[in-house]
Order: sequence, then structure tokens, then C-alpha cells
Amino acid sequence: MIKFSSRMDQLKGSAIRELLALANKPEVLSFAGGMPAPELFPVDKIKAATDAVLEEQGRVALQYTSTDGFQHFREQIAERMGAKNGIKTDASHILVTSGSQQGLDYSARVFCDKGDTIIIESPSYLGALNAFKACEPNFVAIPTDENGMIMEELEKVLATNDKVKMIYVIPDFQNPSGRTWPLERRKQFMDIVNKYEIPVVEDNPYGELRFEGENMPALKSMDTKGLVVFLGTFSKILAPGYRLGWVCADGEILKKYNFMAQAAALQASTEAQLVVSKFIDMFDLDEHVATIKDCYRKRRDVMMETMQKEFPPEAKFTFPNGGLFTWVELPDYINTNEMAKECLAQNVAYVPGDGFFPDAGHNNCIRLNYSCMPEDKIVKGMTILGQVIKANIKK
Amino acid sequence: MIKFSSRMDQLKGSAIRELLALANKPEVLSFAGGMPAPELFPVDKIKAATDAVLEEQGRVALQYTSTDGFQHFREQIAERMGAKNGIKTDASHILVTSGSQQGLDYSARVFCDKGDTIIIESPSYLGALNAFKACEPNFVAIPTDENGMIMEELEKVLATNDKVKMIYVIPDFQNPSGRTWPLERRKQFMDIVNKYEIPVVEDNPYGELRFEGENMPALKSMDTKGLVVFLGTFSKILAPGYRLGWVCADGEILKKYNFMAQAAALQASTEAQLVVSKFIDMFDLDEHVATIKDCYRKRRDVMMETMQKEFPPEAKFTFPNGGLFTWVELPDYINTNEMAKECLAQNVAYVPGDGFFPDAGHNNCIRLNYSCMPEDKIVKGMTILGQVIKANIKK
Repeated sequence: MIKFSSRMDQLKGSAIRELLALANKPEVLSFAGGMPAPELFPVDKIKAATDAVLEEQGRVALQYTSTDGFQHFREQIAERMGAKNGIKTDASHILVTSGSQQGLDYSARVFCDKGDTIIIESPSYLGALNAFKACEPNFVAIPTDENGMIMEELEKVLATNDKVKMIYVIPDFQNPSGRTWPLERRKQFMDIVNKYEIPVVEDNPYGELRFEGENMPALKSMDTKGLVVFLGTFSKILAPGYRLGWVCADGEILKKYNFMAQAAALQASTEAQLVVSKFIDMFDLDEHVATIKDCYRKRRDVMMETMQKEFPPEAKFTFPNGGLFTWVELPDYINTNEMAKECLAQNVAYVPGDGFFPDAGHNNCIRLNYSCMPEDKIVKGMTILGQVIKANIKK
Repeated sequence: MIKFSSRMDQLKGSAIRELLALANKPEVLSFAGGMPAPELFPVDKIKAATDAVLEEQGRVALQYTSTDGFQHFREQIAERMGAKNGIKTDASHILVTSGSQQGLDYSARVFCDKGDTIIIESPSYLGALNAFKACEPNFVAIPTDENGMIMEELEKVLATNDKVKMIYVIPDFQNPSGRTWPLERRKQFMDIVNKYEIPVVEDNPYGELRFEGENMPALKSMDTKGLVVFLGTFSKILAPGYRLGWVCADGEILKKYNFMAQAAALQASTEAQLVVSKFIDMFDLDEHVATIKDCYRKRRDVMMETMQKEFPPEAKFTFPNGGLFTWVELPDYINTNEMAKECLAQNVAYVPGDGFFPDAGHNNCIRLNYSCMPEDKIVKGMTILGQVIKANIKK
């Protein structure tokens, strides 16, 4: 009888994931994933960039490289963070990772021992919870309102729990809620964090996908004490297939992430780094981001309009100003895991909300994605979902 | 003052790594790395495969895929393991990883809690020790002879230590020693492992790079109880730049690796999987492996000849029948960390041996790589190294 580590008790397949595997059929209208629209991938430009890389520096592309990543690529990333997130930084503060999920994994491993406390938003990204669980932490989920984490609740926890080693937040177009923290909330947060000096992991995969309103400065841009670790990714602004993300952090913290990366993976793909770097040099990434934003905004609009029309008044949902998701809360008596089966029977898929809470429960919520279904399918899917919800409402 | 996890006390930068960073200059003859010869990378064929992938299935290549990897790619891997390692398996037993280093990281995390025992060979691959350290295990290093791990010593440990959760071995052209276990030793090992039912991680990056003699069957091919986890990689037979490796394991074990992979990284690069898969479909990977083996065998020969001629009789070294490395043992009073500085002053670099032992010490050893220097530079480098060693021999 083989013994596994105790962390493996935390990491389990979910019933819903197996259910959703069934959703991977062309006839299913899926609002479950968090995938970019594949029809907008700039395949021809990627091909031109790849050709250039393999012609000009093929042997470099196929060889090992350093753990932190290519200097020029890290310079491009640093420059982009300055332009998009108001973060003044440089290549020496960047570690390239194999996707942001790896950055999440490294974060918990750098800061947390078994039994330490990680503070998260309630709800929070299920992939992050899953990554962190491998370190067997205790989660404390801070209640949120329409402006994100409630700061009085955060301070209460920090004032009384001396096992907090890390705070994980997604201030921009949060996954799953779609909510964004306004400036005032960010300032309050940084005041509290500076007071308690707890490391913060700021996950920002969607920040560039703003449909309206002003860009908010990243927490990292307000970080005067070197406490914030910023996680960025090319998955949502270019393509997830390359698995390219990055960590931006200060001094000793970034050094630890580098040691962790060297132990866990050696480096991110050399070829992928050179191709994406060349793409940025040859083409206008901002132009591509504008194209996908335009498409996602329309899809968001269609989803919101259809939900307003087809959902019963008992269904509350967020209106995201960017990103990929909206969050639906139904009456407490509706179990969205059970309802998912009814929907799948009608070829509509979503992610039930309980996975976004460390202690499960919250069975009345749904995360919906609008980025990878065309508008007519969004109308059709939300109409069916509305009917299923209505049928579950008690009269 | 930021607190890091206790595992970060184990993961540190090494002085020698900083020293070797200096070795990254064109004038340095470096025998330090473990890199394939870049001049042999099949860049044109890789480019043809990449063009085909981006033309035929560009949107698939740039999108997310499943955690375990593409079905067809896993079928190709399973087929190759049958042909090369005598392992009868299929796609359902394969998990694609971002390089074998990730497989090492997952291995310790799947099997080991803090304080558990990991059995290794003495010496063992320093990158594996580094990956495992992130789980804060105790290492027990089993003595080796010219045929690998000494089985009587292994059994002694297993009979008395009930905290052993994993045995890590490299039976083919071991890193760093270059040694290969003969068939009889493999059988003994599997008998012992079957008796104690301890999971085995069989790391096999170099098995296909045999210069002479008969291929040995993999431990995994003799595994009747589903105890062996086989780690393979494309880094040494094709190109490390893609970060593509794989785990082959049975039932419940592979399931745990999949959960771990989902938490830690989601998936390996979609694009890289499709490109390497297409390369295997379009071209003859065996032909490419034959080309690099031919080159490495000549380089091994030149290195051995020069060492025999130029090294003093006090220097003992292994004669590898494949792989990338030879291992040098010098008199106990020579500190190869110190001697590395003398060599670097003459533009010759190697890896001192102490990093290949969990408890350091063993300061009289050297690992030498012959795969990525041309023959004339091997002659020049080994001649200089011989002179430096001679100057350090006490008369």
C-alpha cells in the first residue's frame, strides 16, 4: 500500500471537473472555462515571429537558458508594467514563469509552511486555492462587497492572527466576481499592509482588459516597502498555449522566488520567451489587446442584456467593467452543482461557485465566462440558463 | 522583516553557481553544464514542424489544453518507451511535464512530507537534490560501486528506516558518475523494492544516448507491482528549450501526479507539445539521436584519451558508455571548489563534486561534461585541467 504525502489529501479531482470534461463537446455552449477567444489569436503574426526566431537564433531558442529568463524579454515586461500598471521597475525585478499558475505555486511555497494562514478574498480564484493547498495552509477568506475586499474585516484578522504569512488578492476584474477595487480601497489596503508588513500576492491577469472607465494603479505601484509580489501573464493578452507569465518583486523576495524556480523547474521555455519577445518587437501588442477588448466588451454586453431579460429577479449578478467573468448569486436553496447537471442536459455549462471558497459551501453561486462564445451562442446559452434558474425558483 | 517558509532555508544560491556564471564567456572552455551540442539541433526540421503546426492548427497550439497533455503526443511517447526502454505502456499512463525537473519536483511533493526519508545514490544529480529539498526531507545516500547502487547497503537502510517514502535512482549513464547499472543489479534492486514496496523514481534522461554495448531494460519494464515512476525527457534527445518531459506511472500514483500538476502549473506548453509531436511524425527522431550519439561518442573518446595522457595517476575517472558525463576523484586533500578558481583563471570550467552529495563534503570530486565542446577544445581544456591537477598533487 503506497503512502502519499499529506498534501495529497488536499489535492483532489472534483466531481464538477469530471462533469465539465463532458462539456468539451462542440454542441455544448460552455461558459465554464476562462479561455481567450481562439478565433482572435494572431496566428499569422505569431508565425512570422516564430520564423524570425528560428531563422535568426534557432540554436539559442532550442537550448537551455537562465532561470530568471531572457534579459531583453524581461526588459519588455518591465516596460509594459510601467505603461499599463503604473509600476516603475526594471528587468532585474522580473522572473519569467511557465504561466501565472506557477507563480501562484511558488508564492505559497516561498512564504508558507504547513498550518500557516493565507488571507484571500471571499470568493477567490479556485486555481489559486488549489495551488496554495499543496502547502497545507489555513485559509481566512475576507468578506467582499461590490468594491472588493472589506478592509475593516481584513484589519480585524491581521490584528488577531499572527500566523498570516501571505495575502492573496485580484484587485482588477476579479476571478470569479468580475469586481475591481476602486482607488480608495487600494490605498486603505496598502496602509493596512504597510502597518502589518505582510507579503501581498497581487494577481493581475485581466488588468489590461478594461472595457470602460479609468485604469486603476496596481497595488505594486503603491508599494513603498517592497511587500507586494505582482503576478502577470501573457495568457489573456496574447495566448495561454505558451505558458508564459512573470513575477515582479523586490530584492530578497525575488531572490527566493528564483531559488524556488531553479529547484522546481529550472526555467520557462526558451523558445516561447524568444517568440513572444519577437512578437512584441515586430508587432503592436496593444493593437491586439484592443481587438480582443472590443470583442469581449460586446460579448459582455450581450451576456448582460440577455441575463437582464431572461433571468428571474431572484438572480443577482455583477456587471464587470473588464476581464472575462460575471458572478451570479441565486437564492440559498438552489444548489448550483445539482443545477449544472440540468444545464448540461440542455448543453449549457458553467462553473458552480463552491470551488471559489476554501471551505466549500456557498452552493448558490455560479461563475460565467463570456470571452470564448460568439454573441448568438451567448444569447442562446443565457436564455436556456435563465429558464433552468426560473424552474428552480420556489414560488 | 518578511518571514519566508522554512523550506527556503534549504534552497540557496551556491557560491559555485555564481562562479560559473562568470564562465559564461566565449573564451571559457566549459565542461560544467549538461547541455546538448547546439550545433546539432535540427533547426530546419523544427522550423518545418512548427510551420506545419501553426498553419494546420494554430488556434489549438495557442490555446489551453488538458493537464495530462495531448493524446497523440502521449501515444508517441508511450510507443517510444516500448521501443527504447522495453516498457509496455500506453497514453493513459503518461503525464506530460514542463521538463523532467518538474517531474522531480512533483515526485517529492507527491510522496514526501517534511522529515520523511528519500533514498538516493551517492553521488546523485544535484538538480534532483535541489528539487527534493523544497520538501525538507532527510536524505540517505547509498554507497555505489562501478555498477551503481550497492544493494546490500540499500536493504540495510530499508530494513531499519521506516520513514523511507521514495527511492530516487538514475540507472543509465548516471549524472554525475556516468555509470550504468548492469542487468543483475537491476533485478536485485526490483526484488528489494518489491519486498519493501517503496515507490521508486527512475530518472532516465540519457538512456537513449548509448555509445556501445547493449541497452539495459528500464526498471519500469521490470515493475510488476506498479511501484516505479519513470521520468523521461526530450531535453537530451531533441532540445531542452521546449521544456518537455514526461512521467510514466501506474493507476493511483499517476492520478496523484496529475492532481499535483494541475495545482502547480495547469499544463505543459500546448505549442511545444504539438511541435515536438509533429517533428516525430514528419521526421526520424532516431536518425537525429544517432547523429548526436556519434558526435558525443567521439567527444567522449577524445576526453578519455586526453585525460589518460594528461592527468596524473592520482586522478581516477569513470569511463561512461553513454550519456554526457564523466566523474573524477582526486586525492582527499584537494578541494575542487578551490581548484575551480585556478582553472577559471585559465578559462576552464567544471562543476565541483560536493553539490552531488546532500551533506556536501566529498570536496575532492569533479563532474565533467563532454557533449557541448568541440574535440579540439576538449583536448585543450583537459590538458589545462591536467596541469592544474598535477600542480595540486603533493609530492
